[in-house]
Amino acid sequence: MQQEVFLMKETVNIGLIGFGTIGSGVVATLNQNLPLLENKVNKKVNLKRIVDLDITTDRGVEVQPGVLSTSVDDILEDEEIDIVIELVGGYQPALSFILKAMENGKHVVTANKALLAKHWDEIITSAQENNVRVSFEASVGGGIPLLAPVNDGLAANNIETIYGIINGTANYILTKMAAEGLDFDTVLKEAQEMGYAEADPTFDIEGHDTAQKLIILSILGFGVYVEQEKFHVEGITRITPDDIQFARDELGSVVKLLAIAKIEDSELEIRVHPTLVPETHLLASVNDVFNAVYLEGDVVGPVLMYGAGAGMMPTASAVVADCLDIMQDMEKPVAYGPRETRVEKVKDISDVQSKYYLRITALDQPGVLHSISGVLSDLDISIESVSQKKAAEGEAVPIFMVTHQALEKNVQEAIKLIDQMEFVKADTNLIRLLE
Amino acid sequence: MQQEVFLMKETVNIGLIGFGTIGSGVVATLNQNLPLLENKVNKKVNLKRIVDLDITTDRGVEVQPGVLSTSVDDILEDEEIDIVIELVGGYQPALSFILKAMENGKHVVTANKALLAKHWDEIITSAQENNVRVSFEASVGGGIPLLAPVNDGLAANNIETIYGIINGTANYILTKMAAEGLDFDTVLKEAQEMGYAEADPTFDIEGHDTAQKLIILSILGFGVYVEQEKFHVEGITRITPDDIQFARDELGSVVKLLAIAKIEDSELEIRVHPTLVPETHLLASVNDVFNAVYLEGDVVGPVLMYGAGAGMMPTASAVVADCLDIMQDMEKPVAYGPRETRVEKVKDISDVQSKYYLRITALDQPGVLHSISGVLSDLDISIESVSQKKAAEGEAVPIFMVTHQALEKNVQEAIKLIDQMEFVKADTNLIRLLE
Repeated sequence: MQQEVFLMKETVNIGLIGFGTIGSGVVATLNQNLPLLENKVNKKVNLKRIVDLDITTDRGVEVQPGVLSTSVDDILEDEEIDIVIELVGGYQPALSFILKAMENGKHVVTANKALLAKHWDEIITSAQENNVRVSFEASVGGGIPLLAPVNDGLAANNIETIYGIINGTANYILTKMAAEGLDFDTVLKEAQEMGYAEADPTFDIEGHDTAQKLIILSILGFGVYVEQEKFHVEGITRITPDDIQFARDELGSVVKLLAIAKIEDSELEIRVHPTLVPETHLLASVNDVFNAVYLEGDVVGPVLMYGAGAGMMPTASAVVADCLDIMQDMEKPVAYGPRETRVEKVKDISDVQSKYYLRITALDQPGVLHSISGVLSDLDISIESVSQKKAAEGEAVPIFMVTHQALEKNVQEAIKLIDQMEFVKADTNLIRLLE
Repeated sequence: MQQEVFLMKETVNIGLIGFGTIGSGVVATLNQNLPLLENKVNKKVNLKRIVDLDITTDRGVEVQPGVLSTSVDDILEDEEIDIVIELVGGYQPALSFILKAMENGKHVVTANKALLAKHWDEIITSAQENNVRVSFEASVGGGIPLLAPVNDGLAANNIETIYGIINGTANYILTKMAAEGLDFDTVLKEAQEMGYAEADPTFDIEGHDTAQKLIILSILGFGVYVEQEKFHVEGITRITPDDIQFARDELGSVVKLLAIAKIEDSELEIRVHPTLVPETHLLASVNDVFNAVYLEGDVVGPVLMYGAGAGMMPTASAVVADCLDIMQDMEKPVAYGPRETRVEKVKDISDVQSKYYLRITALDQPGVLHSISGVLSDLDISIESVSQKKAAEGEAVPIFMVTHQALEKNVQEAIKLIDQMEFVKADTNLIRLLE
């Protein structure tokens, strides 16, 4: 062992662009576990440069003198830097930074799901053309080892189904609403105060973040890239305590914002929406800000991976692991997902079959149920159960319905017709059931 | 795309030793998903040879003519074979096969946990000396991508805790006992009839299989190899319906056979025993033959991976994935676990602290509780709760106790003293609580 001290170990130089929360987590991880990491890869690991527009704010992590810079060229044009970590976020200038780094022969690690979901082909093609690696484990599911297992660990499988709880903010809100019987707005405000939701939470609560991550999962699982505009994305803002209570008491289910992608007869279903998950399903136990992805492969059957889907340190864990993976093999060709996809068609949401929970808000008067069930029947939607809260005559009350398997377009048409009825006093809410 | 047809792709030749259940699963997987696999690695994948003593029994999978052989040298001495899959099981001749294959420059994939747990150093050293890879994802957790995530995906972390449900037979028995209130022997018999337990189930129900897998997990997580004889391994044969019912009704917990390894102040706790897991913990929802490993890293926090821990196809999924991983990088140096361990000492079970559930079978007569509590008090064991079923005077009834944190050696001493008391009519059963 003593001899090793005198051997020159190869040094790998890292450049970090973006010294925000995750960037600080990366620095903290390197500071904390450097001996472990260097032993793991049997190389010297050197964080040579950190670039950010703001290099004066104290991030609470120790940085070696001379490492901070405001000029991105100090990384992109430094020939000694082997790996560039992009944590700027957003589309530009992040994309330019990544492409330039690759052109200059540098491997890239990024957590930028928005960028990957939009510019996938450009980024992967550039990596291949420049013979560099690009890794992005942190982009989906934060610290959970997730993309490598899907891409490599399950490589013997045709992936058939992916269900993901992959947005911590939405999951936190739904968990809190269920635990405390509070309404959406109250819990959102609380989440914002606790730092679990952004000042502008749209991206998380409307499902866009989930959708971007699902795009990446679909590439890895099915070898197909689907633009976000091409599939149904629905957030959690219309979920009420009534929905959650009915789901629990009558259906033994919880409401989760699910990313869903599954293949059937060469057709891919891909969608993001609140979903009723039976309490017996493992995904129902994924609470608070935690994430999990449940998937089924044709050889392995069901697999689930769970952990912290966001946050400074968990995300840094994945970013640093990507760096180590690259250090262990800088020559590995970039290949994500099956090279040939089985997907021949992406199914429109209107052609999806599901069971549906409907909450119709109607006056409690004779004939209401008769009219509603007539509409449903005309559209081939058969009712599995119906229950209605009692109320004073003439007062609007929720009617809870669960349908058998029905066609989405028929259900949408039914809701349109039902919501036009004069005794219906609020928009009907729909939640799809898992399976 | 058409051009590719005319390009010569590199062929990778595989030799499979052992055409049993898992071997048949490997052949079935290759038959079923060959185009997917070949596209993934961009090479031609050829199962060149299958060796088994029995090459006449129909395994229900298609085999190309000329592939079957009874001579292992047809694999070990065939220069064209790149990867040897060892599915013979047991110690010998499996070890000789693996070492010979490596000597002859062949990469090795194995599912042989018994062999790895016993001959770890020899196998890894041989791989390193011969510059070949050895992969064994299937050896722990069957089809779950588990070892690669621990070894690579969480490489930025010091692993702090590992809790595993990694024996499907034991988990199936405990799940069934809980669901149906049946006793151990009845469920074991049922499990044997369904093929979930071997004719001689000792290995699974006494915890040995779990222990071997835990040895492998400890190497990957903590960089330390602990012989099975050096740690406490306890099976599930003493668990009764009374234990399970009390755990559920009074403690909100379920009984699981856990593999536990955790580090505290450079001391490693490593042990296998039935454990009371709170229903709110994800591991409590891992039922039937499924496996899961829950671990905590110092950067990422908690992570859980779940799936089918055994069985023909799930295990084959991992074996084939290992082959693909090797095909993508045959030069990757063999390195498992941290190169330098933080473990300075393996803690003896007698020094472990835990909360304990005790089931004492005693006559229902005055003074019993007083005597028992006296023993516990003398040994610094403080009681959190106690409850006793009412019975006719003079009849033996179970007394259920839960202790606060106590030292294992004190609890063992207390049980010895209690079981010597004349009013105690059966051996006291102990189950440790999680955390």
